[in-house]
Amino acid sequence: MTNITIADLKFDKASGLIPVVVQDATDQSILMLAYANRLAVEKTLETGSSHFWSRSRNELWNKGATSGNLQEVKEILVDCDADTLVYIVNQKGVACHTGNKTCFFRSLK
Amino acid sequence: MTNITIADLKFDKASGLIPVVVQDATDQSILMLAYANRLAVEKTLETGSSHFWSRSRNELWNKGATSGNLQEVKEILVDCDADTLVYIVNQKGVACHTGNKTCFFRSLK
Repeated sequence: MTNITIADLKFDKASGLIPVVVQDATDQSILMLAYANRLAVEKTLETGSSHFWSRSRNELWNKGATSGNLQEVKEILVDCDADTLVYIVNQKGVACHTGNKTCFFRSLK
Repeated sequence: MTNITIADLKFDKASGLIPVVVQDATDQSILMLAYANRLAVEKTLETGSSHFWSRSRNELWNKGATSGNLQEVKEILVDCDADTLVYIVNQKGVACHTGNKTCFFRSLK
């Protein structure tokens, strides 16, 4: 796998955000999708704890800082267009605020 | 797993789109992230073949219709906020236009 740096990432021009898919390192389930700005990606690289930009609260968001459901980021993957990230994480507790392990607990019919 | 219908989905108010994470049914790798409008989700449910809305070409996009790299959609998952989907797929050939199996073939350092 080749490497890429934060300078190469394409944050959305209007919002300054990049979507982040969070995947469980243990069972590869998809836990959630959130958004990060440049600062959130930098903080994630620095601390190894997942950071996002909360669009509802309009603030930097260290996932689990309040709930204890922290995500230890093992690796960050970047897609071909450099406009989407995957955080591969060890999830403490559950990822979803509903108490479900993953936010994707429903099926579309 | 509980069910949800297309009427419950929250498409982005400005763009009419919803992000879709595509996950390989066989090895659970994340193949790509794309965007769908309501029509694309309906076509996916109807045909079982993944449909998106191409933001660059501004048109409905049946992934693989040209390249042959079709995605058979086994299940569609919906997150807690009903504003993100996961297509669980059987991928024919590769997902990425670069020839890589997945679009996430680079690591952020």
